[in-house]
Amino acid sequence: MSVRIFITGGTFDKEYNEITGQLFFKDTHLHELLELGRCRVPVEIRMLMMVDSLEMSDEDRELIIHQCIHAEEDRIIITHGTDTMSITARAIAEKVVNKTIILTGAMIPIKFGSSDGLFNLGSALAFAQSLPHGVYIAMNGRYFLWNNVRKNKQTGFFEEIN
Amino acid sequence: MSVRIFITGGTFDKEYNEITGQLFFKDTHLHELLELGRCRVPVEIRMLMMVDSLEMSDEDRELIIHQCIHAEEDRIIITHGTDTMSITARAIAEKVVNKTIILTGAMIPIKFGSSDGLFNLGSALAFAQSLPHGVYIAMNGRYFLWNNVRKNKQTGFFEEIN
Amino acid sequence: MSVRIFITGGTFDKEYNEITGQLFFKDTHLHELLELGRCRVPVEIRMLMMVDSLEMSDEDRELIIHQCIHAEEDRIIITHGTDTMSITARAIAEKVVNKTIILTGAMIPIKFGSSDGLFNLGSALAFAQSLPHGVYIAMNGRYFLWNNVRKNKQTGFFEEIN
Amino acid sequence: MSVRIFITGGTFDKEYNEITGQLFFKDTHLHELLELGRCRVPVEIRMLMMVDSLEMSDEDRELIIHQCIHAEEDRIIITHGTDTMSITARAIAEKVVNKTIILTGAMIPIKFGSSDGLFNLGSALAFAQSLPHGVYIAMNGRYFLWNNVRKNKQTGFFEEIN
Repeated sequence: MSVRIFITGGTFDKEYNEITGQLFFKDTHLHELLELGRCRVPVEIRMLMMVDSLEMSDEDRELIIHQCIHAEEDRIIITHGTDTMSITARAIAEKVVNKTIILTGAMIPIKFGSSDGLFNLGSALAFAQSLPHGVYIAMNGRYFLWNNVRKNKQTGFFEEIN
Repeated sequence: MSVRIFITGGTFDKEYNEITGQLFFKDTHLHELLELGRCRVPVEIRMLMMVDSLEMSDEDRELIIHQCIHAEEDRIIITHGTDTMSITARAIAEKVVNKTIILTGAMIPIKFGSSDGLFNLGSALAFAQSLPHGVYIAMNGRYFLWNNVRKNKQTGFFEEIN
Repeated sequence: MSVRIFITGGTFDKEYNEITGQLFFKDTHLHELLELGRCRVPVEIRMLMMVDSLEMSDEDRELIIHQCIHAEEDRIIITHGTDTMSITARAIAEKVVNKTIILTGAMIPIKFGSSDGLFNLGSALAFAQSLPHGVYIAMNGRYFLWNNVRKNKQTGFFEEIN
Repeated sequence: MSVRIFITGGTFDKEYNEITGQLFFKDTHLHELLELGRCRVPVEIRMLMMVDSLEMSDEDRELIIHQCIHAEEDRIIITHGTDTMSITARAIAEKVVNKTIILTGAMIPIKFGSSDGLFNLGSALAFAQSLPHGVYIAMNGRYFLWNNVRKNKQTGFFEEIN
């Protein structure tokens, strides 16, 4: 059961620039995480963009949707910034059917050592293999349907709306 | 959806004794992993034993089965050494029905920094929430039914028998 | 040979706030670094302030100088932000004599896993025990006299002026 | 001021074989430690052997001594297993003069994440630049003269004999 993984950026892949003290994108850390997890799920990885999700445009989301529709695999993971993850999930759900699509990310950059990214990737891969078709967010060890999820900006945790 | 977690030991929880150069058990690292993963799944954790799975006795397995049968939750994770994980899975499957039971572990101790344990725990929690009743092993990002899995001792990866 | 350590803040002790995505100060990580290094040098630690060195005031520097003068130990380490480390070194050198004073810090926060802080602390402690009286900066594995050092803002490395 | 570094093995460079559960040598981690520490000391690195110090032979020590005598640099660091570090220090001291030679190592392998190796390397480099000619052991943030040091096998710390 092969899984397609689309990379879009987000805190997940941010790094610390020690000269400026700013966070920035250099390259994805997904391959090293899969190696660290000793993962043997057949995956097909494609980097679509590398953006902070607060700066993701409508065109960016159109591209993600286009890629989801035309992917051969019907099981897809999208790594994504947490701030607008639920917006992208909704946009995908309106256009893509007959696929299991899992959006996930991280609150702390992978490179910071104590990230939640490896845990989230493990759960996203498991949900991608076991949940029925639909669009979901996988964060905090849980999964949420695209139409009943929000990020609580005070706590940083994802929760149901209702 | 609450998940019961039983701790039995295994490489997962081993530590390095810098005086003797030997691996040993001190305490479980499960709580810190759940915190690292920013996990919000309601879990009930119980330590049943702290043993190398090569030294797990029939009595130990009886205890695990007893605990699975009497757990209130119908979703259970068991952290376990990888060497005899499939033996314990089979023993449980012969006695416990109507529950989703996931055995998982790690090839590299959590304390060694580059462990697969955090990834495996993320996937085990996801499988526990999404798979139908049955006994499974969750390793390498995949899940295996108890009656079709073995650890490949050459590669260290889990694989189907057939 | 006991060493006094004064903590003043800097990147060394910064942490990542996963809700806001900003760096901030919570507490010092010096004790855990000394434990990690299995350090057995007798040390006396005092936190003087917890500031970004770009925001360090003249009053702050007066306090540091006062503490250096009145410390019982003649071997002193000061953890400090790198941006104005050489300014503070100069201010101390004008007022304090008959002591070996080492300023050190980090380019990457300790909490980010891949920090230079543990390495710098090891070298600062060694220089504090072995260099003659004077005020020095210990960074990049090297030591610099207070009157011949600057931080190269392009490379992030410390270097001699002449 | 250039420093010569000789690698001989020891816990410092051991790795964990996840298939067998044994520790073994693969390659040195010295270069990544120097990069992590953002080190700018000019160093010349040479791997002489890769052995557990309990298995270091008289011939091995002869080779180390030969290399110390013929090194261009008069400042030398030797990474070494801790168990027989003081024996090698004594052997060197009997044959090599007019050089500052620092033996150091680690109680926990670099690859285990929480190693003392980065701290020890930082202090060894500092002592190599600042101590007068002689043969020393740098461990636990301290330095010891070759003729007044032993490893306390109960505590794992180095201490003076007298």
